[in-house]
Amino acid sequence: MEYVKPMDIEKRSFEIITEELGDRKFDELCEPIVKRVIHTSADFDYADNLCFSEDVARIGIEALKSGCDIVTDTQMAKSGINKTILAKLGGQVHCFIADEDVAEKAKSEGTTRSAVSMEKAGKLPKKCIFAIGNAPTALIKLKELIEEKKLEPVLIIGVPVGFVNVVESKEMIMNTGVPYIVARGRKGGSNIAAAICNAMLYQITR
Amino acid sequence: MEYVKPMDIEKRSFEIITEELGDRKFDELCEPIVKRVIHTSADFDYADNLCFSEDVARIGIEALKSGCDIVTDTQMAKSGINKTILAKLGGQVHCFIADEDVAEKAKSEGTTRSAVSMEKAGKLPKKCIFAIGNAPTALIKLKELIEEKKLEPVLIIGVPVGFVNVVESKEMIMNTGVPYIVARGRKGGSNIAAAICNAMLYQITR
Repeated sequence: MEYVKPMDIEKRSFEIITEELGDRKFDELCEPIVKRVIHTSADFDYADNLCFSEDVARIGIEALKSGCDIVTDTQMAKSGINKTILAKLGGQVHCFIADEDVAEKAKSEGTTRSAVSMEKAGKLPKKCIFAIGNAPTALIKLKELIEEKKLEPVLIIGVPVGFVNVVESKEMIMNTGVPYIVARGRKGGSNIAAAICNAMLYQITR
Repeated sequence: MEYVKPMDIEKRSFEIITEELGDRKFDELCEPIVKRVIHTSADFDYADNLCFSEDVARIGIEALKSGCDIVTDTQMAKSGINKTILAKLGGQVHCFIADEDVAEKAKSEGTTRSAVSMEKAGKLPKKCIFAIGNAPTALIKLKELIEEKKLEPVLIIGVPVGFVNVVESKEMIMNTGVPYIVARGRKGGSNIAAAICNAMLYQITR
């Protein structure tokens, strides 16, 4: 067992990740995002499957600096985001998935709570960052709302995980014209969504 | 895009996982655990790296049926566990990582909050299931407490993720004599820890 001081564990982990990534080159502001996702998952597939729209990390970081809020599709993603730093910058995390009115509307319309929670987020007064780690139906609803001009996200973190319409929903979100960070393919998760948010927050302050 | 009714998405996902696992054979009670972890991560590596001690799924399920509590090392794992079902069975989830006294003790002893949160869990009146998805230092502390007869977990879900002492801490926990479910290697996470708990809960009731 290697003795590493608690405060140095993360630093040592990032050194190992950097070593194993070898010669891989990334955009300067995206690199810490790729590395933090690998740190969160121990899965180097993300070095290949993370897709970034032009200038997206700068857009996300600038927005967070100005107090931008984040909307998540799960409590777990909300739970994983560093809310202390976000609050210092003036932002907060919203997650409507467990709201009574969302559950009722989803039931009556035969759709998912995730999709309805995106509609509810569309009524927030601020432009937000959307961090979707679970539900492809949330991404599909976001696309609809964007096309109907009912919602204008600052950027979409599209990293749902799974087997039904996950791959397709991610490809779709990359064609909306909205800045995106997407994990192409089946992989992703609430932990990945939170890690991407934190990687941007930690570039601002830590 | 495939149209799948919201209530059928999970069912269809499990069918795809079953198809892709092909001829792989698992223990009857462990199979739903393996499949739920793959469902949570879209990562078939878990079909190979999940290790189960003898009879562990039956032990876990029986304990949960009798109202056993779960201790996690992160708020995120706590957030991912189905607390509604757990509460119906008489159990609850404990996570001490964000407690003031834990932070203070960790600082003064130069150790991690995760390790100290395990000491605190050792003082709970009930025997618990420990679900560790983040911190190898939590597993290392659990081993110490077990050897010092200060703690007797019902079972340990040992699935921290990462690069520093993660692999070693998992191998160690498999040699304590305590029933275990471990993801051998670097992979794991809070989402994986929660998925394993839920896979046992859903075998009791859903």
